[in-house]
Amino acid sequence: MQPLPNMQKKLYYGSAYYPELWPEADIAADLAHFKATGIDVVRMGEFAWSTMEPDEGCISLDFFRRVIDRLHANGIDTIFCTPTPTPPIWLTDGHPERLFQDEQGRRMHHGARQHVCTNNPAFRECSRIIVEAQARALGRHPGVIAWQTDNEFACHVGACCCSTCASLWHVWLEQRYGTVDALNTAWGAEIWSERYQRFDQVPQPLITPFVHNASLQTAYRFFTRALLAEFQREQVDIIRRHSDAPVTHNSNIGFRLDNAQIFKPLDFASFDDYPDCDNWRHMLDNYGIWRTVKPGRPFWVMETSTSHNGYLAAFQKPHRTGYLTVEALAAYASGAQGFSHWLWRQQRAGCEQTHGAVLSAWGQPTIGYEPVLAVNRMRREVEGLLVDSEFRPPEIAITYSDAARAFMFTEPHENLDYLQLMRRWYATLFDAGLPCELAFAFTDFSGYKVLCTPYMYHVPAEFMARMLAFVQAGGTWIVGPLTGLRTAEHTVPTDCGLGEIEVLAGVETVFSFPITNTGATGEALGCSAPLEYWASLFACRGSSRVVGTVKGGVVPGLAFITEQDVGRGRIVMLGAQPAGEEGQAMIRTLVSHYAKLAGVRLPLKTTLGTVVIPRTDAKGEFWVAINMDGAGGSVDLAAPAIDLLSGETIPAGSLAMPPYAYRLIR
Amino acid sequence: MQPLPNMQKKLYYGSAYYPELWPEADIAADLAHFKATGIDVVRMGEFAWSTMEPDEGCISLDFFRRVIDRLHANGIDTIFCTPTPTPPIWLTDGHPERLFQDEQGRRMHHGARQHVCTNNPAFRECSRIIVEAQARALGRHPGVIAWQTDNEFACHVGACCCSTCASLWHVWLEQRYGTVDALNTAWGAEIWSERYQRFDQVPQPLITPFVHNASLQTAYRFFTRALLAEFQREQVDIIRRHSDAPVTHNSNIGFRLDNAQIFKPLDFASFDDYPDCDNWRHMLDNYGIWRTVKPGRPFWVMETSTSHNGYLAAFQKPHRTGYLTVEALAAYASGAQGFSHWLWRQQRAGCEQTHGAVLSAWGQPTIGYEPVLAVNRMRREVEGLLVDSEFRPPEIAITYSDAARAFMFTEPHENLDYLQLMRRWYATLFDAGLPCELAFAFTDFSGYKVLCTPYMYHVPAEFMARMLAFVQAGGTWIVGPLTGLRTAEHTVPTDCGLGEIEVLAGVETVFSFPITNTGATGEALGCSAPLEYWASLFACRGSSRVVGTVKGGVVPGLAFITEQDVGRGRIVMLGAQPAGEEGQAMIRTLVSHYAKLAGVRLPLKTTLGTVVIPRTDAKGEFWVAINMDGAGGSVDLAAPAIDLLSGETIPAGSLAMPPYAYRLIR
Amino acid sequence: MQPLPNMQKKLYYGSAYYPELWPEADIAADLAHFKATGIDVVRMGEFAWSTMEPDEGCISLDFFRRVIDRLHANGIDTIFCTPTPTPPIWLTDGHPERLFQDEQGRRMHHGARQHVCTNNPAFRECSRIIVEAQARALGRHPGVIAWQTDNEFACHVGACCCSTCASLWHVWLEQRYGTVDALNTAWGAEIWSERYQRFDQVPQPLITPFVHNASLQTAYRFFTRALLAEFQREQVDIIRRHSDAPVTHNSNIGFRLDNAQIFKPLDFASFDDYPDCDNWRHMLDNYGIWRTVKPGRPFWVMETSTSHNGYLAAFQKPHRTGYLTVEALAAYASGAQGFSHWLWRQQRAGCEQTHGAVLSAWGQPTIGYEPVLAVNRMRREVEGLLVDSEFRPPEIAITYSDAARAFMFTEPHENLDYLQLMRRWYATLFDAGLPCELAFAFTDFSGYKVLCTPYMYHVPAEFMARMLAFVQAGGTWIVGPLTGLRTAEHTVPTDCGLGEIEVLAGVETVFSFPITNTGATGEALGCSAPLEYWASLFACRGSSRVVGTVKGGVVPGLAFITEQDVGRGRIVMLGAQPAGEEGQAMIRTLVSHYAKLAGVRLPLKTTLGTVVIPRTDAKGEFWVAINMDGAGGSVDLAAPAIDLLSGETIPAGSLAMPPYAYRLIR
Repeated sequence: MQPLPNMQKKLYYGSAYYPELWPEADIAADLAHFKATGIDVVRMGEFAWSTMEPDEGCISLDFFRRVIDRLHANGIDTIFCTPTPTPPIWLTDGHPERLFQDEQGRRMHHGARQHVCTNNPAFRECSRIIVEAQARALGRHPGVIAWQTDNEFACHVGACCCSTCASLWHVWLEQRYGTVDALNTAWGAEIWSERYQRFDQVPQPLITPFVHNASLQTAYRFFTRALLAEFQREQVDIIRRHSDAPVTHNSNIGFRLDNAQIFKPLDFASFDDYPDCDNWRHMLDNYGIWRTVKPGRPFWVMETSTSHNGYLAAFQKPHRTGYLTVEALAAYASGAQGFSHWLWRQQRAGCEQTHGAVLSAWGQPTIGYEPVLAVNRMRREVEGLLVDSEFRPPEIAITYSDAARAFMFTEPHENLDYLQLMRRWYATLFDAGLPCELAFAFTDFSGYKVLCTPYMYHVPAEFMARMLAFVQAGGTWIVGPLTGLRTAEHTVPTDCGLGEIEVLAGVETVFSFPITNTGATGEALGCSAPLEYWASLFACRGSSRVVGTVKGGVVPGLAFITEQDVGRGRIVMLGAQPAGEEGQAMIRTLVSHYAKLAGVRLPLKTTLGTVVIPRTDAKGEFWVAINMDGAGGSVDLAAPAIDLLSGETIPAGSLAMPPYAYRLIR
Repeated sequence: MQPLPNMQKKLYYGSAYYPELWPEADIAADLAHFKATGIDVVRMGEFAWSTMEPDEGCISLDFFRRVIDRLHANGIDTIFCTPTPTPPIWLTDGHPERLFQDEQGRRMHHGARQHVCTNNPAFRECSRIIVEAQARALGRHPGVIAWQTDNEFACHVGACCCSTCASLWHVWLEQRYGTVDALNTAWGAEIWSERYQRFDQVPQPLITPFVHNASLQTAYRFFTRALLAEFQREQVDIIRRHSDAPVTHNSNIGFRLDNAQIFKPLDFASFDDYPDCDNWRHMLDNYGIWRTVKPGRPFWVMETSTSHNGYLAAFQKPHRTGYLTVEALAAYASGAQGFSHWLWRQQRAGCEQTHGAVLSAWGQPTIGYEPVLAVNRMRREVEGLLVDSEFRPPEIAITYSDAARAFMFTEPHENLDYLQLMRRWYATLFDAGLPCELAFAFTDFSGYKVLCTPYMYHVPAEFMARMLAFVQAGGTWIVGPLTGLRTAEHTVPTDCGLGEIEVLAGVETVFSFPITNTGATGEALGCSAPLEYWASLFACRGSSRVVGTVKGGVVPGLAFITEQDVGRGRIVMLGAQPAGEEGQAMIRTLVSHYAKLAGVRLPLKTTLGTVVIPRTDAKGEFWVAINMDGAGGSVDLAAPAIDLLSGETIPAGSLAMPPYAYRLIR
Repeated sequence: MQPLPNMQKKLYYGSAYYPELWPEADIAADLAHFKATGIDVVRMGEFAWSTMEPDEGCISLDFFRRVIDRLHANGIDTIFCTPTPTPPIWLTDGHPERLFQDEQGRRMHHGARQHVCTNNPAFRECSRIIVEAQARALGRHPGVIAWQTDNEFACHVGACCCSTCASLWHVWLEQRYGTVDALNTAWGAEIWSERYQRFDQVPQPLITPFVHNASLQTAYRFFTRALLAEFQREQVDIIRRHSDAPVTHNSNIGFRLDNAQIFKPLDFASFDDYPDCDNWRHMLDNYGIWRTVKPGRPFWVMETSTSHNGYLAAFQKPHRTGYLTVEALAAYASGAQGFSHWLWRQQRAGCEQTHGAVLSAWGQPTIGYEPVLAVNRMRREVEGLLVDSEFRPPEIAITYSDAARAFMFTEPHENLDYLQLMRRWYATLFDAGLPCELAFAFTDFSGYKVLCTPYMYHVPAEFMARMLAFVQAGGTWIVGPLTGLRTAEHTVPTDCGLGEIEVLAGVETVFSFPITNTGATGEALGCSAPLEYWASLFACRGSSRVVGTVKGGVVPGLAFITEQDVGRGRIVMLGAQPAGEEGQAMIRTLVSHYAKLAGVRLPLKTTLGTVVIPRTDAKGEFWVAINMDGAGGSVDLAAPAIDLLSGETIPAGSLAMPPYAYRLIR
């Protein structure tokens, strides 16, 4: 493992820590528990603006300096956060214009978090001041191994519609379109006489009797996201002036932002997520996707629960015993350098009192304490092997795009949810034993052999160019369903059904229509499945070949899967979603077929719920085998292997994996 | 068929056409496709205000004149629309007071349509100016065969609650009640100390802690509808000053308006609807109801899809192959002179990109193209027979009233939905082979033999008088359930349970209460069924007779169906809704019983899903037999018949009707 | 029975009466029907402010004086109400700032009721003026036997968030906390940098991106409730200056108020409720709970329907024949002195036209009339026996607390609903034949032997002290589930899991976590059941004993039920909710076990749906046996008994109880 800059070559085990909420005297007990549990890094400060700056302009980092000093003295590192998600009362008191305003026109209020518009100039100024103060005060502190900007951007809020945003929106539009006529043309704004005379007339997506123009909706999402990235950029620039420690943000694909822009100026990826132990697959897809933000660099699991998440109005059931250990091991084995809990001590106040922690509000071990000890024991056991090896990435990826998600928010068709759809594709391949991951569309695709791009309504030119290069270099690109239907402006192409892709793939979209429940069945590679969602049905042009054909429905006989050689690789068009169980089987068959052609290396076979994570070290390759579902299973060993932890030899054949067991085998 | 004024004696086949959204050069290709598909009329202009008047006061109809010229030169007629559903940005920019405001107090914004209050004086003035300009410019153009006012009034919005409306409301109330004391008395406003001192204190139905007074709610609906009709009236008057072409509006019974007032100044009926092919019965009930707007005059199906409707967030499945042809044939056979699609070319922008069309956004045939060709072939086949014959209306009708629907919006009891209830009544009779239709309560009832008036909480005096005349002339009037419960002011009668009807029908409402789930069963004409909804149970007075009696429940033994001879006809009271399958059977038996007594002529017998539409010509009567459900069926011929299309003789007995087949038989 | 002050020693039978809504001439007919039905008391005036004061300052009580005179002359008493739930239009016309504002920031409007902020100073002044006028005018009228303040406080509205309330909130906070630092500490306001610099910065619980701090939410509920009680207090003080008649309020546990504060200055309890006949148990739990407001004093059922309730948008099914009689008998037998209907004559206007009544809007008997006659016959039959005897309260109670409900509104965990949970506990014990009731937590607990306190997140010190006294005097206190989890400030205790109770009960909360669906099973007293909701699992300290142990789940082996002797009694901790049918059985077994130990006297055994209500008179004890469910059942007589109504002897054994039958047996 190549550690992150500024960090040691080790696996970090951390926790979110809020010493500002407790008597300073309690720190001693915390230190004892940190040592007992092996916690060697804490994340601090992200909600502590009122501690750092209780009155406007009265800034002191003394408290945090004292805490970081003590932690450092005890061998505990700190990831220090900018506190901008929780503006103090003096920032909004008497300033309603600074508050976030939703699409219903309702202003938010002080009392929770993210209630301020991050585009408000006064807020921006205050943000720069506090970040500058933090960075100056602690930027060179040896205990600060990294920085986190803000926290969970856009976790509670979408697009702000305040009057500051209105003005910036008009500026942004002018920069994007140059003239209002260009905007009118791009958006087809003559429709419904929406046509604008000046940029300053273009509304925000505030309430209308029906729905807004798709182009406006999607553009407003991009505007919002761009300015959020700009807001973060200000913080990053300030931190860098005073600190060499790497900077990250704690993100989550469920939030409404553009991770491409957010992570561009950052040094490493980190995220939080809280699937319960029955949804362990969600944690694995996170490991894949966040690894692809900065390929070759470790990522961090910045927040996850020791047992369950919760707030006043809901909570999960606690993880079953043993799960936390394998969740953490899977993270480390998949390329995480850090695995950190939220939170150290149960909140005594606020709105998250029911969230799992390491210690209770009364300072005693919670049900999460013993699992934390177990994680630490596992870490000690595997650390040597993991830091001297590297995760070997899969050769198949499903491209994931926040922009594609933005298009689908605007145009959900049949209540389509991009996240759910992507996770289902991932699960379809993963459960078939295909070594794959969700990968951000902005990542470096060298190293992959098969890429699948479903549900990307608009294929940006830049992405298309990279995919073409990928294909020409020998890759297989499986395109669709629903990919290419819209232009960059969220309009329908007027040259052909799917724009440029049709030319590259040698197809013509003959019909484009909703195929759900029409009786249409797809037949391909010996599989048969009903088709669903919006479909593009093809005729082949030139040298492309039909792979799958539609039977029944309103226009039978057309192709829904085609194949075209391009350079040393190929483009496979998938014009409609195969549905149900048969559809899953068809997708598996399709991807397996191309994986085989592409020479994708398959992992050891396992039963469902048991996974093998490939690593390479100086001696070659080894596997981290883990039973993730707690039901037990087995790994199929073609040849005798060595258990790297015990040194014992494991005979060929089926290796039993008891519930939540793990083995490092070569 | 007596064609509409200004129109030829032929069947029109049309499409909504938006040349303003596409390069003018594309018109040539459109003309070629119009000819290929047989489209001989287009509807234009309804959303094109910004094209006609891009800046306030800068009006030019040149573009549309050019288009209409070209269409006319190619034998294609135009229905030209006023563009008032989509006010340009200059109409609201800087004028928030012109925006529609909903009952939650939220103002709408520019970006979709119907966002302006149609009562706003500035909007009204702009509306008059643009309509005047259109009518002057094109009112005498030979290509303009008809006008459409606005489009789909109230399709997205209900009652506006802006301050303009507040003032007009107060004026309207003063005109209606004269003194505020009269209003207080009429509304029972002493209840909850609601009593007003001045008209200008009467609130709009804006949010309250519980619900508004029923009288206020219903009155506000009537106020809103009256002013919407007044708004249209201004347009109609202007058009008539410059054009002899007939004027219509594109309506739909799902919208919240009063079609009686809307269609009074208009020349013919038109509507749109988009049931999918599984809901073909909804299209048939539309044909009936819209025929009754102007009895004896053809109507138009002004919008329906070639395949499916859709917008960003939802779409239907496409029609099965063959359906469009029979949908159109059923329209023509039921009295339509025109059948027109929405829309010609798929929207490339806006929010309806997924709606079915004839051409795709890239100018190619869609899945709807071949069905359109098929419709045209059918039209050519049947046109001669249909234009030389007339639709023979059914002799049974269920009276439909937008006012009754308004009362039920105010007082939905058990989530009752007037539209659903009426369609269920229609389906109950229709599926029993009874020749019936939904008929607007304002229509001319001569020609009917049996009228059913369910769910009309308030029976207006004018309607009552016409029904009494109908009965005295020999008709049978079946009254109820839920009919007569309320006064014109949406209060409970204080003289007896159902007001004047009780006298006419010779009944006394002994008890009036909710009978759902009380265990009460109705017994009548050999049928037995549970009773539901609010019930009025009767004792007979004078010469009236008990037809149905209640068993069980809280007050057994009373009548729920009675019969009274009146003049040469009779009034049948139905005091409670027979529920479930048994209830449907009871309603069928009841109506059949009176239909037989009244000498109603029954049509040819068919299997469910196959219909026969009666026509008469110089030679007598013939039938248009159609399989509507695509499942195939048969028609029962008592005697040999002639197939009018082939000239062949069909033997007596069961005539097979393959899926979506049609036969014209005499 | 000790009658209420100012009242006769008899059972009253009443109705809500709105003579102001009808022609004064109709009173004669009403008087005739009052006599025929036995109605001897009416409640009047609660919505009649506009009749008393049609214009601001023009007050006349003449109308009501005339009505009360006539009623009194006819032997009918009056409960006179203050009319403040329905402010006249002149109170809000031109004064939007007086209107109630909800948490979404939406102002209410005139047109229903409770639309004014009861904290608005102008409203308060108008309220004092009208109440003073009423009390002066009619405070000594011999026909006025009692007063009712307002009506159904907070039935439609929760916490007002207007600017008046904002100011008062800040004052209230200052009074409560003294310094803003104290507030910050109490609320843990450093969390999310919520920290306040001044009291006037503390927001109302208006909309935020996520949820407000729990302490703020709960405090705002308490603030609102305190000021509502203060508002009533003003009225009570005024009435007392001019009248000796007792004062009550018509409440309901479904409303959002603090009955402890509301009833403190009042003389007797009254309430309304409208369960339909299938939910007869809800009426019984009401009788218990409202009896405990003023132990030893009769209560009133101030409103219930003769047949069904209803308004424009919904209604119930009518009661089955016979139910009303037993509903009333159960009330009288359980300690009611009055039983009164809503309403006398069906509303002809407003929004409650579909509500059941005694007379129809047209002045005829409704389906409720005959049941009313039947109630009166029953009353005449039993009155002598009941007025010369007393209800004997049960020895088991489940403590009910509006404050506990407020905490759960803030923190509902798994959609927990305090009211539903409490009713389920009651039903669990009641259906097991355990003589129990829901009892307000502020009541006098002497006389009980076993008290259960489930779902009380915070246990106030005052309550704890009374419970400790109860236990020390020999009582058994069963504590939990979910009891004691939070401090008075709605934070988590920081000394131990459940605060002071742990010391008293000799337990330590080892783990506190959500146990639903974790596979944990509780085993106790031979029962076994899954556990659910938030759990506190215990280790015993000192002399306490484990009664129930957890098997399975994430931390098996701990106690979830413990027992500790305290003084002459004991404290039983129940740390988790036993779930499902087995859970109900476990709760029954647990409470039965301690009831037996405590020597609780059990009633006669009955079949489910038949109840026996114990009464005592000079001759000893007798039972009012009633079949409540209308299905019939039986009572088990251990020995021969006397039927007090017929004087006949009933043999020992099973006494059949036909549907809705009742027997008074000794």
